[in-house]
Amino acid sequence: MLFAVKMDVEIPQDLDAAVREDLLSREKNYCQDLQKAGRWVHIWRCAGQYANLSVFDVADNDELHTLLWNLPLFPYMKVSVTPLATHPSALDAAAAAS
Amino acid sequence: MLFAVKMDVEIPQDLDAAVREDLLSREKNYCQDLQKAGRWVHIWRCAGQYANLSVFDVADNDELHTLLWNLPLFPYMKVSVTPLATHPSALDAAAAAS
Amino acid sequence: MLFAVKMDVEIPQDLDAAVREDLLSREKNYCQDLQKAGRWVHIWRCAGQYANLSVFDVADNDELHTLLWNLPLFPYMKVSVTPLATHPSALDAAAAAS
Amino acid sequence: MLFAVKMDVEIPQDLDAAVREDLLSREKNYCQDLQKAGRWVHIWRCAGQYANLSVFDVADNDELHTLLWNLPLFPYMKVSVTPLATHPSALDAAAAAS
Amino acid sequence: MLFAVKMDVEIPQDLDAAVREDLLSREKNYCQDLQKAGRWVHIWRCAGQYANLSVFDVADNDELHTLLWNLPLFPYMKVSVTPLATHPSALDAAAAAS
Amino acid sequence: MLFAVKMDVEIPQDLDAAVREDLLSREKNYCQDLQKAGRWVHIWRCAGQYANLSVFDVADNDELHTLLWNLPLFPYMKVSVTPLATHPSALDAAAAAS
Amino acid sequence: MLFAVKMDVEIPQDLDAAVREDLLSREKNYCQDLQKAGRWVHIWRCAGQYANLSVFDVADNDELHTLLWNLPLFPYMKVSVTPLATHPSALDAAAAAS
Amino acid sequence: MLFAVKMDVEIPQDLDAAVREDLLSREKNYCQDLQKAGRWVHIWRCAGQYANLSVFDVADNDELHTLLWNLPLFPYMKVSVTPLATHPSALDAAAAAS
Amino acid sequence: MLFAVKMDVEIPQDLDAAVREDLLSREKNYCQDLQKAGRWVHIWRCAGQYANLSVFDVADNDELHTLLWNLPLFPYMKVSVTPLATHPSALDAAAAAS
Amino acid sequence: MLFAVKMDVEIPQDLDAAVREDLLSREKNYCQDLQKAGRWVHIWRCAGQYANLSVFDVADNDELHTLLWNLPLFPYMKVSVTPLATHPSALDAAAAAS
Repeated sequence: MLFAVKMDVEIPQDLDAAVREDLLSREKNYCQDLQKAGRWVHIWRCAGQYANLSVFDVADNDELHTLLWNLPLFPYMKVSVTPLATHPSALDAAAAAS
Repeated sequence: MLFAVKMDVEIPQDLDAAVREDLLSREKNYCQDLQKAGRWVHIWRCAGQYANLSVFDVADNDELHTLLWNLPLFPYMKVSVTPLATHPSALDAAAAAS
Repeated sequence: MLFAVKMDVEIPQDLDAAVREDLLSREKNYCQDLQKAGRWVHIWRCAGQYANLSVFDVADNDELHTLLWNLPLFPYMKVSVTPLATHPSALDAAAAAS
Repeated sequence: MLFAVKMDVEIPQDLDAAVREDLLSREKNYCQDLQKAGRWVHIWRCAGQYANLSVFDVADNDELHTLLWNLPLFPYMKVSVTPLATHPSALDAAAAAS
Repeated sequence: MLFAVKMDVEIPQDLDAAVREDLLSREKNYCQDLQKAGRWVHIWRCAGQYANLSVFDVADNDELHTLLWNLPLFPYMKVSVTPLATHPSALDAAAAAS
Repeated sequence: MLFAVKMDVEIPQDLDAAVREDLLSREKNYCQDLQKAGRWVHIWRCAGQYANLSVFDVADNDELHTLLWNLPLFPYMKVSVTPLATHPSALDAAAAAS
Repeated sequence: MLFAVKMDVEIPQDLDAAVREDLLSREKNYCQDLQKAGRWVHIWRCAGQYANLSVFDVADNDELHTLLWNLPLFPYMKVSVTPLATHPSALDAAAAAS
Repeated sequence: MLFAVKMDVEIPQDLDAAVREDLLSREKNYCQDLQKAGRWVHIWRCAGQYANLSVFDVADNDELHTLLWNLPLFPYMKVSVTPLATHPSALDAAAAAS
Repeated sequence: MLFAVKMDVEIPQDLDAAVREDLLSREKNYCQDLQKAGRWVHIWRCAGQYANLSVFDVADNDELHTLLWNLPLFPYMKVSVTPLATHPSALDAAAAAS
Repeated sequence: MLFAVKMDVEIPQDLDAAVREDLLSREKNYCQDLQKAGRWVHIWRCAGQYANLSVFDVADNDELHTLLWNLPLFPYMKVSVTPLATHPSALDAAAAAS
């Protein structure tokens, strides 16, 4: 089941540099692990923004919430969620909705 | 080059039924032709909305505008466009940005 | 899987009275059938508004979209959807998320 | 009498960890006591948000305000309140409004 | 129990003049009857607006909804509702909350 | 002359406790003095909010501004002002506007 | 007593041309009569908008409302009102507040 | 050439008192010098707000920007600018636009 | 003196086709005449929108208003205006501000 | 390919003065280097705002993002991006879109 997720990031300028590096490194690993696991199926940078547009493929709302809640950068993000359904004009409808 | 496009549709209730059917049929064909041509790479229904979230892969802003402007339903849509760039954490960054 | 759904209704004043009555009657039947089927688990009137706040229990986003799209009043509604997950403080967490 | 309440939580990142833990622990106890007392009748997590959607069953506006004002996390919340009335299509209308 | 209610009115310019007059006359009577009954305790014109700010004193949310829903001008209004509680600094707290 | 005033309060969590207590105490005295003087004619708590809806009866805009500007909590408030006029349906129009 | 008033005008394109001309002519006369009477002390066109920013000098909120409500174009306007007080830095404070 | 300028001021509560006094004193002098020079032609307090509505008479956009940018309180202000043109109904059109 | 102008166009679907064509043809001529005259110095299509972002070079606010007010499509546009000043980092500052 | 970019700057008042000066100096150099390279083709100050409206000419979304992300002031900016296409009425359409 697919969800579009927009994440706007705002890390305070005065955050300790080492803490910041650690956060960003853990965020990248976390993100790539979920991509390899087939859960985080798309991630794009919104041009000119500290933000991304992503698509998640999860079993249900609880799994979606758990994945997002555990993002290392979650406390510094504004997150919006759009549940996605199959579009009747989509050629890949079956695959997209799986 | 990728763009996220959100399309909110509002067709007047009093539009002639035949005109409406024709519009919807042409819209579907137009959409599927662009999918086959590799230009309209994703289309998802936003659950509970007469709206879709799509991703286009085009040569430049002019091609994007031409494709959207010629949508049969364009006069009945509110369209918002987000230019997408490669995300540094994306495993498929090369492919995504192609 | 639960979703909160807010529906704001706006029926044009000049809609034919018989058409209106038919719409409202079909809407009520549709709503009560889904309640009996355990899909539309709560419906409350927002006081002072032609609007309701509802909770749906569905298998996935596609089912949610289908149920909402087929509402007789759907063309006259503005709908917003919030996917709900289990809250860690909920006593009835297991039941609520079923 | 029912009220829908949306609570968006934002706890400062620099809050002392022990203070934070104490707050969260007291919030959970407070929430579960009100559930047992039949006052806080639903609490759902909004997926991907540090937020919940809740339904309260109280005697009047004063009781609602007192319950919310005394939430341990109240100073860190943005709260919005929607008074709920019986919906004419609700099968459980009598129960819902009690 | 008190509620603040803001009503913004927008009557279509092309509404039949007699229908309009009848609506306005019935609205005035309805409003004054509720004032006499002690339900509509304040009504003020918002200066420069086709709008009013009112305070209702009702038994519960259901009564509030019924009173507002039956306003002759309800189909032409945008209504917003704020539940009011006793303020700890109010000298007339007891009276105000009665 | 009447004005509706909505006051949303936000006191920083890290304000010194004694300073806070002093502010709140002075605010309450200030508010009650103006009630006794017939200037602050209504004050209601907005349920679930650190906010109030008030009605002031003043000679003119300058007096209104002076009263609000001197609120001990003014630096911590977001204030919105709505000038009120007599409503033609008000039974107590003469008294309300006095 | 001064009020800033922003008026945004939207006259339907399909309004009968003679009705429109009559409205605009009466609006201009009404406006200039109030200027001569010292009530409508400033009127500026907002560049590029069918809108004006005006300043009224009236006895009280009731007079302001009456003047605005009787604007021939009132049914086609969105009006916002800001009560103005004397600014402590104004050299012409005494005059401005008169 | 006239511009309406709305200035919303927000000075941090923890700003050093002497710095604050100095800022306010310089702001007042700066404002009154521009009034004497015929550049800052109106300044009104928005009642109940730490805000003013002003009208500037300048040679061009560059002069307007320079005047505003050099306000001692500029770093603590949210500023919005509306270019004003002559209104065809203004009796003092020639003077107002000079 | 430069102004950025955003124009959002919305032509009713039921406008007579010949009227529409005439409007669009006159709009194009008007636009190109002002380009040749050095008044409308840039016009770009906002991709995916029936909108443009333009830059005008005019003597003052009155000229700007006159040019925009006389756009054949003005009654079908939502227009927003931003006065532009010389940027201190612009290499072409002198030219840009001319 | 052209993009309009609006940059709103907000530098904290308590930023160390030397750090601030260094930031501003590097920002100016960075901006002017991109102007010389033909990438940052316009920059205008929004009058009365700590903001600019700019136009970039880049190969694709990735280049745009890289240029903006590397702005020395990027962490202190709110950035919005509008992709621009050739307008059919533009006399310089070929040049503008190059």
